[in-house]
Amino acid sequence: MDNSLVFETYDGKPHEECGVFGMYGKGEVQPAYAAYSGLLALQHRGQESCGIAVNDCGVISYHKDMGLVSEVFNPKILNKLEGQICVGHVRYSTAGGSVRNNAQPLVMRYVKGTIAIAHNGNLTNAYEIKQELERRGAMFQTTIDSEVIAFLIARERVVTHSVEEAVMRTMEQISGSYSLLVMSPRKLIAARDPNGFRPLCMGKLGESIVFASETCALDACGADFVRDVEPGEIIVVDENGVRSIQDFCQGTPSPCIFEYIYFARTDSVIDGVSVYEARKEAGRLLARQHPVEADLVVGVPESGVDAAIGFSEESGIPYEKGIVKNNYIGRTFIKPTQQERRRSVRLKLNPLVSTVQGKRIVLLDDSIVRGTTCDRIVRMLKEAGAKEVHLRISSPPFRWPCYYGTDIPSKEELIACKCTIEEIGKISGADSIGFLAVESLPQMLHKEGCRYCDACFTGNYPAPIPKCMLEGKEGRTCMPIEK
Amino acid sequence: MDNSLVFETYDGKPHEECGVFGMYGKGEVQPAYAAYSGLLALQHRGQESCGIAVNDCGVISYHKDMGLVSEVFNPKILNKLEGQICVGHVRYSTAGGSVRNNAQPLVMRYVKGTIAIAHNGNLTNAYEIKQELERRGAMFQTTIDSEVIAFLIARERVVTHSVEEAVMRTMEQISGSYSLLVMSPRKLIAARDPNGFRPLCMGKLGESIVFASETCALDACGADFVRDVEPGEIIVVDENGVRSIQDFCQGTPSPCIFEYIYFARTDSVIDGVSVYEARKEAGRLLARQHPVEADLVVGVPESGVDAAIGFSEESGIPYEKGIVKNNYIGRTFIKPTQQERRRSVRLKLNPLVSTVQGKRIVLLDDSIVRGTTCDRIVRMLKEAGAKEVHLRISSPPFRWPCYYGTDIPSKEELIACKCTIEEIGKISGADSIGFLAVESLPQMLHKEGCRYCDACFTGNYPAPIPKCMLEGKEGRTCMPIEK
Amino acid sequence: MDNSLVFETYDGKPHEECGVFGMYGKGEVQPAYAAYSGLLALQHRGQESCGIAVNDCGVISYHKDMGLVSEVFNPKILNKLEGQICVGHVRYSTAGGSVRNNAQPLVMRYVKGTIAIAHNGNLTNAYEIKQELERRGAMFQTTIDSEVIAFLIARERVVTHSVEEAVMRTMEQISGSYSLLVMSPRKLIAARDPNGFRPLCMGKLGESIVFASETCALDACGADFVRDVEPGEIIVVDENGVRSIQDFCQGTPSPCIFEYIYFARTDSVIDGVSVYEARKEAGRLLARQHPVEADLVVGVPESGVDAAIGFSEESGIPYEKGIVKNNYIGRTFIKPTQQERRRSVRLKLNPLVSTVQGKRIVLLDDSIVRGTTCDRIVRMLKEAGAKEVHLRISSPPFRWPCYYGTDIPSKEELIACKCTIEEIGKISGADSIGFLAVESLPQMLHKEGCRYCDACFTGNYPAPIPKCMLEGKEGRTCMPIEK
Amino acid sequence: MDNSLVFETYDGKPHEECGVFGMYGKGEVQPAYAAYSGLLALQHRGQESCGIAVNDCGVISYHKDMGLVSEVFNPKILNKLEGQICVGHVRYSTAGGSVRNNAQPLVMRYVKGTIAIAHNGNLTNAYEIKQELERRGAMFQTTIDSEVIAFLIARERVVTHSVEEAVMRTMEQISGSYSLLVMSPRKLIAARDPNGFRPLCMGKLGESIVFASETCALDACGADFVRDVEPGEIIVVDENGVRSIQDFCQGTPSPCIFEYIYFARTDSVIDGVSVYEARKEAGRLLARQHPVEADLVVGVPESGVDAAIGFSEESGIPYEKGIVKNNYIGRTFIKPTQQERRRSVRLKLNPLVSTVQGKRIVLLDDSIVRGTTCDRIVRMLKEAGAKEVHLRISSPPFRWPCYYGTDIPSKEELIACKCTIEEIGKISGADSIGFLAVESLPQMLHKEGCRYCDACFTGNYPAPIPKCMLEGKEGRTCMPIEK
Repeated sequence: MDNSLVFETYDGKPHEECGVFGMYGKGEVQPAYAAYSGLLALQHRGQESCGIAVNDCGVISYHKDMGLVSEVFNPKILNKLEGQICVGHVRYSTAGGSVRNNAQPLVMRYVKGTIAIAHNGNLTNAYEIKQELERRGAMFQTTIDSEVIAFLIARERVVTHSVEEAVMRTMEQISGSYSLLVMSPRKLIAARDPNGFRPLCMGKLGESIVFASETCALDACGADFVRDVEPGEIIVVDENGVRSIQDFCQGTPSPCIFEYIYFARTDSVIDGVSVYEARKEAGRLLARQHPVEADLVVGVPESGVDAAIGFSEESGIPYEKGIVKNNYIGRTFIKPTQQERRRSVRLKLNPLVSTVQGKRIVLLDDSIVRGTTCDRIVRMLKEAGAKEVHLRISSPPFRWPCYYGTDIPSKEELIACKCTIEEIGKISGADSIGFLAVESLPQMLHKEGCRYCDACFTGNYPAPIPKCMLEGKEGRTCMPIEK
Repeated sequence: MDNSLVFETYDGKPHEECGVFGMYGKGEVQPAYAAYSGLLALQHRGQESCGIAVNDCGVISYHKDMGLVSEVFNPKILNKLEGQICVGHVRYSTAGGSVRNNAQPLVMRYVKGTIAIAHNGNLTNAYEIKQELERRGAMFQTTIDSEVIAFLIARERVVTHSVEEAVMRTMEQISGSYSLLVMSPRKLIAARDPNGFRPLCMGKLGESIVFASETCALDACGADFVRDVEPGEIIVVDENGVRSIQDFCQGTPSPCIFEYIYFARTDSVIDGVSVYEARKEAGRLLARQHPVEADLVVGVPESGVDAAIGFSEESGIPYEKGIVKNNYIGRTFIKPTQQERRRSVRLKLNPLVSTVQGKRIVLLDDSIVRGTTCDRIVRMLKEAGAKEVHLRISSPPFRWPCYYGTDIPSKEELIACKCTIEEIGKISGADSIGFLAVESLPQMLHKEGCRYCDACFTGNYPAPIPKCMLEGKEGRTCMPIEK
Repeated sequence: MDNSLVFETYDGKPHEECGVFGMYGKGEVQPAYAAYSGLLALQHRGQESCGIAVNDCGVISYHKDMGLVSEVFNPKILNKLEGQICVGHVRYSTAGGSVRNNAQPLVMRYVKGTIAIAHNGNLTNAYEIKQELERRGAMFQTTIDSEVIAFLIARERVVTHSVEEAVMRTMEQISGSYSLLVMSPRKLIAARDPNGFRPLCMGKLGESIVFASETCALDACGADFVRDVEPGEIIVVDENGVRSIQDFCQGTPSPCIFEYIYFARTDSVIDGVSVYEARKEAGRLLARQHPVEADLVVGVPESGVDAAIGFSEESGIPYEKGIVKNNYIGRTFIKPTQQERRRSVRLKLNPLVSTVQGKRIVLLDDSIVRGTTCDRIVRMLKEAGAKEVHLRISSPPFRWPCYYGTDIPSKEELIACKCTIEEIGKISGADSIGFLAVESLPQMLHKEGCRYCDACFTGNYPAPIPKCMLEGKEGRTCMPIEK
Repeated sequence: MDNSLVFETYDGKPHEECGVFGMYGKGEVQPAYAAYSGLLALQHRGQESCGIAVNDCGVISYHKDMGLVSEVFNPKILNKLEGQICVGHVRYSTAGGSVRNNAQPLVMRYVKGTIAIAHNGNLTNAYEIKQELERRGAMFQTTIDSEVIAFLIARERVVTHSVEEAVMRTMEQISGSYSLLVMSPRKLIAARDPNGFRPLCMGKLGESIVFASETCALDACGADFVRDVEPGEIIVVDENGVRSIQDFCQGTPSPCIFEYIYFARTDSVIDGVSVYEARKEAGRLLARQHPVEADLVVGVPESGVDAAIGFSEESGIPYEKGIVKNNYIGRTFIKPTQQERRRSVRLKLNPLVSTVQGKRIVLLDDSIVRGTTCDRIVRMLKEAGAKEVHLRISSPPFRWPCYYGTDIPSKEELIACKCTIEEIGKISGADSIGFLAVESLPQMLHKEGCRYCDACFTGNYPAPIPKCMLEGKEGRTCMPIEK
């Protein structure tokens, strides 16, 4: 790669690590096709690799590779993936390296046949468990937590009577976040960590049972939503039907609030709350908390649009498109010389000049993490003739790194750790700035008494973070060289 | 390909054939990089193939292939494309076949060196000219009109003194639509047919001159808009500067109205009119022409959203997102068995259930051509719980095929040729239906006295259509078999 | 794949499974480049996948994929593979499945860092060990024996003081054939099973130490041959130099005789015997054992040519090319209708008509296993006008399957199990047939008292074959679906 | 590509440009499959690109791309290539550039439908004709002579009654070498230039008529040889059968002698002479012209082996393999640092040390052109222990460039233009050197009075070479940038 090129893909936002999908089929729909549809709907949760494993009477076959779902799968491959049960996965990751070997589902042979695992989340004690397992002679071929989980399940399966018992004994040992799908020769098991950090829901497609990270994946494959998998719950599906194990449901759940703010798809409903409604509500709250006189409300596409509609509704200031996003920009690049030009390049986002010219604009964005993009957007609107730009952020200042399954910007990279809100406003070039108050988060979810994880805003981590993780010592291992 | 799979890419809408970009460089920006940015912004005009040709002191090199701009080009290739002048092209086509050989720019050696041609449009007399040229011994290696144009330019160049004269004599012979860029060893020439069917604009990037199908491509590469190329105008750029030839500007222009309705990007400004404002205005007009009591206004993404915002503004009914589009669906497919299920599959579009449930909805779409998609969207909203769905179409009924550079659905495929508006409403399942009145089109453009081509709505073709074209006889020739 | 096509790649011969290469570098030559050259020279031992792993101060990186060495590697990839130690592998396999996951070297993280393993051979007790390991909770991600070896080394490494001790304790547990290269963070270890079934030799390239399956790989990378690794020997190379462990050298070695007959490259020298000279000697012996009056001696390319030269030398009958091989035939296919034609298709082999016409020919081939090719070659020569064709086979009849690292035709497929020599001769269409006598094998090697494995001819298996293997029960596990 | 790498593919020999295959089918064999087999057999004549065009009742479809026949075609593609007539082509070229656009067959639409052309050879007046055609307004999209031929045929077809008449009038205008296959909507036409520079033969497969550059392609597809196409002959095949036009057969033929020496496959028979027998005869002649006392005769594989067998026969000195070639080396590369090492790298060729050690060797090679390889081979044998190496070249010194369809080394690159035979011997490091006498060439072909082109040895060019060609002015045109 030519060093004189700057890749423009990185938008400064934290990334969700993964999406999972599983199906225990009892009907005419081939599970691999359902998984294909479901993973397409979960693609926003991970664009680096994807895979589907199917179980045909105990024989597991799978296909996984680097790339988007639409690139990795085609009808020929899907037709080969015959089987009654399936698990699928989409993955984005910096931790663990973005290499082919780390693609999921992870398929492994163990004492009771073959299992396939799809995992969304981040174990906080993976490193310790790995070291302990290695001390006993275990070997690891990937750098992903899922391999640790698989090893524990295999070890426990030897001394228990069923794979669900092995999953239970594994859950006793692992900490952190996990929404987990395990496909054994005859069962499909879903498990969600006691905090319920990452979402996981259950649906029904005819007689078949479906699990997915988000409800939009149920919609995509034609399944009806049944209910969320509860934090700490294990759901076992086999030929006898569906069975719930709730031994780990005692704790206080704390689902990730950032799913509502940024990660999840706007048409998903997580733990009973519509993502779209939550985002709109954040906009309404902002209109009350940080009112401003203006002519238009504009959202930064895609994630800022919902809050903009809410802000407009509450304030009565008309909603306008204002900025257009180019959907064909994937991994693209521009020459720095172009960037430094008098007029900024409007490759990914372009303002509607005739709309914004001479106008006072309220600009809604979902969050400011590193602070590298919002100033460019504000400047772009001003260059397009906007008289004023008032920045409204539909989440509180992002001040603490996340250890529960999103990529981890260190505190040094978080602009809200280095600057006051006023300074951020000044850097952004906006005429005024306003963040959503931390106290309003419950109201955003329309659930006054609810509990959730807002550690990224408050530093109140609901599950312990081991020292090695805080120090970033978790080691890299072997790395394939990809072409 | 398995026949049991139905590709879901086709949305029943007519397709624009192409987008063009050209640059005569006099500065630090490498034309190939500007073309890359510009073509990314024009990608909506053609997703099947693309290419860039550059002229380095008379030596032309080029790269073109099937695929998206982001797939066909990378920094290594762009760095090889050194040169002071460039032309680029994106292409979608059914006519001519979607094969590698037909990718543009077309690069040919002729008596005065090498020329490269990028062409958006459709000659109505290409078949006759081809036959006449063949009778004199000409041979054709592609099935695209651009090759005919190139042959004419070459023939005329022998008997004229400059390439612009040859372009002029070529324009005397060709009919139909063309927005044309011709790169000769020392010049870049832009030409637009006397009707001005397809858009073409000029910009400036530092000292460099840029041409593009739409202004959004100027924005993308950092260029400032200068003016539109006038219908019938030829603009010649060489080391002496920019020169306009207006010998063909006498006629009555008739730019395509469908560019505003559907083809163009919403942030482009064509012939002085903002596409976004035109679409919003169509929504406002609909609100007056077909008012309805409702709770929400929703647009079918992407093209229906702008009119929905306008309808909401005029009617006072709140605008809501209502439907979410999956941007990762490219060439995807589903099994028909899934489609026939009780609940429709929501792969590409998914309703926001909590928003639409129990609500009376005004649904805005840009046009109904074949009528194969709107019934599915109406049904989807009803299944999601919408109490009423009132369909409003921001264009008149589409009743006549287009011969000026978009793909041509025959009259048999046009639903408005077979059904009355009431019948279309009934088929769609909507509670009411309303189309924009043909008479309102000037108002949509905010230009009372303006002329445009609305043949697809009225059958008033501003340029003659030869008999062979009406009968669909224009012959296919040789076709490579692509892997 | 169209079923009406017959792939012509399979020549009915058993296949060697693998080739290995390793280097402990102390000089200017980058080990990855030496491995690249070495693997190119070993390509005949495996054409399905290949890989190279390098160790850069304890950090292991690797690249492996399906395909030929020349397809999988390029300078960009090799340049990234920096490191002082390397192991490489080429693989052909039916057992284990020809899938990407099974490509070697196998790279795994264990208690003492990361190890990479390249293995040629076949463990006869892999299935039992795997079952025992799984009973203790081990998991397997591939279906290759090398993963079993890696697990054992890891388990033993925990309770020993060095990786070579762990290799020793592993060798106590595994049976069958293995020529093994193990790269630990600071060492390169070569080990050969006590029978010495598969070849393994050591060379020197400047100060660097090189190991390879055959001497032709030493030649290819510019290394000088030092000596063979002895059956049962372990050689440890680290910064202190080269150390030999001979605890397992007590047994009676029995290197595979078929390496000389067919597997090895003709320019290699294995255990002190030139492969070319052995093949020529087999031809000379045949000339004495089965003399015949003829005009020409012709060899079936490539493997029959050496014996033909020997037969010619001994008999005085002139050697002629007679048959030409098309080196561009890789994975090609022909339509059966073509095959059944009056005249046989001469795609891969073609006779020199002017040479064979009217002549009495002695035709030398290396072996008859399934008997599917020799009749076609005899017929081809007769059609080309040969008056007589006398078939001489430079090995005894192949009557017993191999369990030591070549693919295993069952007894039902071996023509010599079903037919007498006379019947084989009749089936082949030859005017006479003669096999090398089993008793002559020592003479072929110019070593009267030497021991080797000739189980495929005699059924005298020098190492025990477990029942599960004889019954073909060794189970398949998970299988990726390759595009 | 890393500049520090030296590609080892170039062997210093001139390259044949192309091979052609055509079939007029009347039977069960699908022509595309016959072409596939035939092109596989002609692959040695061109490895850069290949293609097949078929004619299905006037509709021509084709597939062509860069790569080997086995890479470019698969059953899926072949099955799509249905039709009764076909032409195929393999291509190697420096002239014209090795780019996808230049792949053949060339398929063009003209006044009488579509024609496809496959051409082996080099027009000496292509540049003049092109200039003349361009002056009349013609345009060229490729840089190959075949496009010139197609243009002439198209131009003449307008004023004649049949395509064969157009071919005749074209032949009146073109000079140089051409073995040409033209597929018109209803005919297959074969034409060979009056000198007969390049070979072309006719065969029969059932009722179908086949044409190919060499007889080995007839063998490969199962066809029987009928006869050579005569120099100057045009053969027309259509539904009425086969018709010969001999108006251009008056001249004195001069087929290329180098086809026998190096280009053609050893199992082909060209113009009645077996290539293998000619090569063996050259070896026999050398044994008489340059006798030497020695222990072994060895040929440089592949091309030197046949002469070595002949030399051995004549001299009585035993033939031995001596050198082994690695058939898996395609486009491979080595680091120069490796090359400069004390011991030369034996990647492509490796000596049989036990055979050559201590021996006096006669080494046969087919030709010395640039002189860059023979010294390395002599040195390699000496390093392997050879006591003496006597170099015998089975052709005269190569002193003149070729303008008739092989790539053209300029005189500066020809070692025999710069050095005496003694000097070449000294440079090569051989103990003695001997070239075949120019006077022996007729004897090599077993045809005393025969005429052939030996311009590369004598400078007696049988057809005029225009000045622009001698000066190397023939211009490059547009060049696509390949990924």
